Amino acid sequence: MKTRAAVAFEAKKPLEIVELDLEGPKAGEVLIEIMATGICHTDAYTLDGLDSEGLFPSVLGHEGAGIVREVGPGVTSVNPGDHVIPLYTPECRQCKSCLSQKTNLCTAIRATQGKGLMPDGTTRFSYKGQPIFHYMGCSTFSNFTVLPDIAVAKIRDDAPFQTSCYIGCGVTTGVGAVVHTAKVEPGSNVVVFGLGGIGLNVIQGAKMVGANRIIGVDLNPDREEWGRKFGMTHFLNSKGMSREETIAKIIEMTDGGADYSFDATGNTEVMRTALECAHRGWGESIVIGVAEAGKEISTRPFQLVTGRVWKGTAFGGARGRTDVPKIVDWYMDGKIAIDPMITHVLSLEEINKGFDLMHKGESIRSVVMF
Amino acid sequence: MKTRAAVAFEAKKPLEIVELDLEGPKAGEVLIEIMATGICHTDAYTLDGLDSEGLFPSVLGHEGAGIVREVGPGVTSVNPGDHVIPLYTPECRQCKSCLSQKTNLCTAIRATQGKGLMPDGTTRFSYKGQPIFHYMGCSTFSNFTVLPDIAVAKIRDDAPFQTSCYIGCGVTTGVGAVVHTAKVEPGSNVVVFGLGGIGLNVIQGAKMVGANRIIGVDLNPDREEWGRKFGMTHFLNSKGMSREETIAKIIEMTDGGADYSFDATGNTEVMRTALECAHRGWGESIVIGVAEAGKEISTRPFQLVTGRVWKGTAFGGARGRTDVPKIVDWYMDGKIAIDPMITHVLSLEEINKGFDLMHKGESIRSVVMF
Repeated sequence: MKTRAAVAFEAKKPLEIVELDLEGPKAGEVLIEIMATGICHTDAYTLDGLDSEGLFPSVLGHEGAGIVREVGPGVTSVNPGDHVIPLYTPECRQCKSCLSQKTNLCTAIRATQGKGLMPDGTTRFSYKGQPIFHYMGCSTFSNFTVLPDIAVAKIRDDAPFQTSCYIGCGVTTGVGAVVHTAKVEPGSNVVVFGLGGIGLNVIQGAKMVGANRIIGVDLNPDREEWGRKFGMTHFLNSKGMSREETIAKIIEMTDGGADYSFDATGNTEVMRTALECAHRGWGESIVIGVAEAGKEISTRPFQLVTGRVWKGTAFGGARGRTDVPKIVDWYMDGKIAIDPMITHVLSLEEINKGFDLMHKGESIRSVVMF
Repeated sequence: MKTRAAVAFEAKKPLEIVELDLEGPKAGEVLIEIMATGICHTDAYTLDGLDSEGLFPSVLGHEGAGIVREVGPGVTSVNPGDHVIPLYTPECRQCKSCLSQKTNLCTAIRATQGKGLMPDGTTRFSYKGQPIFHYMGCSTFSNFTVLPDIAVAKIRDDAPFQTSCYIGCGVTTGVGAVVHTAKVEPGSNVVVFGLGGIGLNVIQGAKMVGANRIIGVDLNPDREEWGRKFGMTHFLNSKGMSREETIAKIIEMTDGGADYSFDATGNTEVMRTALECAHRGWGESIVIGVAEAGKEISTRPFQLVTGRVWKGTAFGGARGRTDVPKIVDWYMDGKIAIDPMITHVLSLEEINKGFDLMHKGESIRSVVMF
């Protein structure tokens, strides 16, 4: 079949809207009509050539929502017509990781996914006979795409695609970091560094679970209004403040330090500040942001010996097929908000504009509607 | 009253055995006759002048066992004749830390303890009219010493002082790191870096809770026999191996990485290796060793984002009055062994020999009997 798609033919070049050839689903695979896709920093990271493992030509995009149109042999978990969210972190429920019940990082298709291929080692996309790679196992910048059935979460039919696509990455990453990774308890003090799309979702996750103080830290004063909209109770503009000053201020604001702190900046210096502002004895700091290649985090081991815990999270610790549908429910029930975060709705032809808006910091989330 | 004690008059000098004046217990304090005390690396660290906050002249020693001889006004938790272990980490059961139920790091007397003083801001020791500082709130290198009642753990009367004193620091630190901090589950794979006194106690803690593989890593091949004596199942001599080689070997030996790894070396490079050999998705690494002043730990944040957790432990996460008596029971019930670890028994006059043995790596634990 044919599908319209935005293709990254090479790094550091705008995406090109072309018509691709798409092979139908093989055994254990499903064909999905993507109805909406968000544009995430990770797509830009790859397109900008910063990801040393980035593959070209490829169909980027990993934050989508759509409808199952066809299922390959052996697929029983979804049916044509089902509304789904593609999962860049699949959930096979059979590998060592899934069975550990301690992580969401399913390893069933990790090797081929990293090579831009389906589990059988081939690609479904091609352009004029030339193979085009999949991306993060999703490739949602295509009107139609193929995924393994373990990598699609069935969601309710009444969730709008325009907003629920954001649950495919940003919402789940931020809210999940609170709920699944940190397991923030009611009454906790939470500090969030970086009030972009992820940070705002951390804030609303913290609000949902009944956190007490929710302190947002950002260098951009315009983000205060955004933070407050989603439940932030206090704002700290750390511009011009040293690490020590920021930590001292947060310790003062929280009467001893953060019960839970989150880095949503990707800056390794901020990750250190986030750890060290955590409360002596029990404060946990969760790294969400993806750092530049080669950058390292550091601290004195004394910070850990006196009880702080340093963790990270990927896809918010959410098991895709199990937890993503619940987050859709939370959205539909009004426990979390997504609509105000979708600042721009674009057509596929406008997708490069979405990247520009993100680079300029002018969007929280741009969504492309097919 | 008078007491015989080994006094550190200044850094980098041998201890001197002298007779000190000791004031009796004030309100909320108890007088303890120390029957036995271990010599720990932390005493040497201070004596060697490496602790920038070390105070002199002082009575060092923090790993003791003895008998309550007198209680000050208001003391109800212990009585004269009770066998006790002094606690450098007290347990007041009333401060924010104790009430959090998330940490053992009671803060009730932290400020004065750090200054070498009792909670009222004065010292009980003096020599020819000159005040002598307390050390870690314990000062067990004295035949008699005074402690706040919140800093003594009442233990059973039939536990020998010569071995139970070791529970005052080393045993609890190692066993507790497994039981209280990591909460190692049966069937886990455990990797321990550094097979000194702490590392061996980590090993026997891991054995006690039913760990599967217990891998010891050390540069000294002589330590293999020691490790196996306490439950180590595999030994890795990492001498001459790069970090990458050590990690690859451990991942091979554990089929993917350590469920729990422990640093008992104090070396920040080893701490990094310990973190990075932890299993993707859930491996936790616990820093036990105290690093040199100014040294930092580093890693790529990717290690955390892919599910590894970096923690530390102090006094094995044990609440002194609550958990230490239980560890004494485990010892008396034969669940853990201490006797073989006490490699040298000395008189107070021989205490400097104990430091020599430790510096040369010739002892697991030297104990001074009064």
